[in-house]
Amino acid sequence: MRIEAVDFFYLSMPEVLDIGDGSQDACLVRVRAGGYTGWGECEAPPLVCISGLVCPKSHSAAWPVRDSVLGQPLDDPADIARIATQVGERSLDMLQADHILSGIDVALWDLLGQRLSEPVYRLLGYPRAYPKLPYASVLFGDDAAATLRKAQGIRSAGFRAAKFGWGPYGKDTPSEDAAQVRAAREGLGEEGILLIDGGTVWREDIAAARLRVAALQEGRATWFEEPFVSGALDAYREIAALAAPVKLAGGEGCHTFYMAQHMMDYGGIGYVQIDAGRIGGISVAKRVADYAVRKGVTYVNHTFTSNLALSASLQPFAGIEAAQISEYPTELASLAAELTLERITPDGDGFIHAPAAPGLGMTPNPATIRKYLVEAEIRAKGKLLYRTPQL
Amino acid sequence: MRIEAVDFFYLSMPEVLDIGDGSQDACLVRVRAGGYTGWGECEAPPLVCISGLVCPKSHSAAWPVRDSVLGQPLDDPADIARIATQVGERSLDMLQADHILSGIDVALWDLLGQRLSEPVYRLLGYPRAYPKLPYASVLFGDDAAATLRKAQGIRSAGFRAAKFGWGPYGKDTPSEDAAQVRAAREGLGEEGILLIDGGTVWREDIAAARLRVAALQEGRATWFEEPFVSGALDAYREIAALAAPVKLAGGEGCHTFYMAQHMMDYGGIGYVQIDAGRIGGISVAKRVADYAVRKGVTYVNHTFTSNLALSASLQPFAGIEAAQISEYPTELASLAAELTLERITPDGDGFIHAPAAPGLGMTPNPATIRKYLVEAEIRAKGKLLYRTPQL
Repeated sequence: MRIEAVDFFYLSMPEVLDIGDGSQDACLVRVRAGGYTGWGECEAPPLVCISGLVCPKSHSAAWPVRDSVLGQPLDDPADIARIATQVGERSLDMLQADHILSGIDVALWDLLGQRLSEPVYRLLGYPRAYPKLPYASVLFGDDAAATLRKAQGIRSAGFRAAKFGWGPYGKDTPSEDAAQVRAAREGLGEEGILLIDGGTVWREDIAAARLRVAALQEGRATWFEEPFVSGALDAYREIAALAAPVKLAGGEGCHTFYMAQHMMDYGGIGYVQIDAGRIGGISVAKRVADYAVRKGVTYVNHTFTSNLALSASLQPFAGIEAAQISEYPTELASLAAELTLERITPDGDGFIHAPAAPGLGMTPNPATIRKYLVEAEIRAKGKLLYRTPQL
Repeated sequence: MRIEAVDFFYLSMPEVLDIGDGSQDACLVRVRAGGYTGWGECEAPPLVCISGLVCPKSHSAAWPVRDSVLGQPLDDPADIARIATQVGERSLDMLQADHILSGIDVALWDLLGQRLSEPVYRLLGYPRAYPKLPYASVLFGDDAAATLRKAQGIRSAGFRAAKFGWGPYGKDTPSEDAAQVRAAREGLGEEGILLIDGGTVWREDIAAARLRVAALQEGRATWFEEPFVSGALDAYREIAALAAPVKLAGGEGCHTFYMAQHMMDYGGIGYVQIDAGRIGGISVAKRVADYAVRKGVTYVNHTFTSNLALSASLQPFAGIEAAQISEYPTELASLAAELTLERITPDGDGFIHAPAAPGLGMTPNPATIRKYLVEAEIRAKGKLLYRTPQL
């Protein structure tokens, strides 16, 4: 097969709110080859990705990403690796390229899985997919009382694990933040797995993060996620050393294998959180998962959008039995909630499963795409470079 | 003052060739406040930067960059730092944002310098600017004979240092690559400072890079630049250990302070090369320069475009006397060569100087902008988001 089409669709809620909910819009990717259609998602602002897909080249290391994908052979996983290398070389100086490639890589794996009649995790070398324990991933309530109600609701819905993050956490006083953590623990019950997300709120301020550690230990949090921005490895390592038994978690901002590697090698994290829609796709995510196993670090998916993105993010660690915790967004905007015909839902025991269907097992609903599709147009150098493609 | 306007201009040569010459187009930034105009350049594909400047927001950590800049107070350097923090938080999930901010930060320093009647390096805390020894930065010739002629020409033009990179180097056999290095040394003469740039050609293949080391030692290269992609720290460290007295150089791909820090802390580089148009601007570049001094690493500018970019890249290490080597592009496309009314040229002793004029001391030539200006337009959600601004 040869890749015949690479199309990006910009979907958006009618109104995008100033809240930390990444599912309010979507950069949906469609790749076509040999009669098959693969789908993916870039976890990034759609218009920026679209521009990097189609912009005129700037020089030999700043080509539009599409030029390294269209027309390429696609018959086995080695072809996907070759395309990624080509994008890496020919779009080296386009920073956004890693996020753009991510959605394309996901779509290529989906397409290849359909063609070879295998779920993606099997193409990645995993004989089987193990059940994952989903944690409900929600924003902190506006105050501790609101968080308590959220946590109680999550427990009533059957979840055994939950992550609270963003919202007011880290912007309030340490004692208010501690009250938030206590409320989350109370709502989840003594047995629940509690995860806390700092959302990079302290950037690299070790002293501010340190003031929150005792509350996390008292609340028996399993992990303390992203107190700092992704690259602040010294800060991560210092807090990791004093937060035990709470482990540090991070990695969602990584857009290369190396960044994730450095967080494990030098940042002292115990959980590495990878978004397949950012790090370069399923291919790079699998490489991180392999490295994490060697380093004794637990791989976790980062997913805050659709079930298409969730399926993509489950594949790279589907076959690692010990990596059981899995992010499972439960407060999706309708655009993301309705995006796929199939859904990944917890089974009777509360576990979720990577789909057994070929590819990613997720079909975008044409009606949803039409409902949320944004008309966009980019022109430069006298040419129409992009117009919203036909469905 | 408050920031009244932030405008991006897309300039391009009529034809962009598939060669490693980054000066074939430009993303020119103009900022206006209080009757002053500051100029900067993003070292990045213009249309991708423009999209990230103006795109609709995706969520609370993916705002268009312009929204964090327009209307902000700008009276002293702390205001520039505050704007950068705001962009970092509100555009955290837009990968391209670091490159977009870079050009804006440069323009803000230029504007503030004009307002305060000081060259930027003085606002950065340097009492004076030391002369820098420019190295001519050129592509390898297509073969050793062509490289010999280039090197002879550079020597005749009065340069005491030259860097050869990209072109066929690393893609040919090790013996052909060795011949290229010998030709460059021969053309420069025994006393010339010879720098070799691998242009990330081996990505992370240590064995391939190792085959080139002996020729670099024999040719008495001062540094071996970017044998690998930016994050491959283990590969850098391994080659650094065996290449002595040749030192490793790298860092042009860094888009955060942390990435540069990791190359110094864990990659074993002896020269850190920073492009102010990529790393987040003059502000972040200065932070890298300070850290390099503490680590005993030599800071060098990375500049392959206009004299505006060159002035911006000289400021962060202008006051470090020991960091004398400076990249000085000599094969600019006409767009970049003609961009500024003022020029930075070697003095009688062969040294260049950061301009003593207020700000960056570089005025874009309106005639050049008009000559190379690309008309571009971006529409989405029923709105015209970008149209080439008026000069």
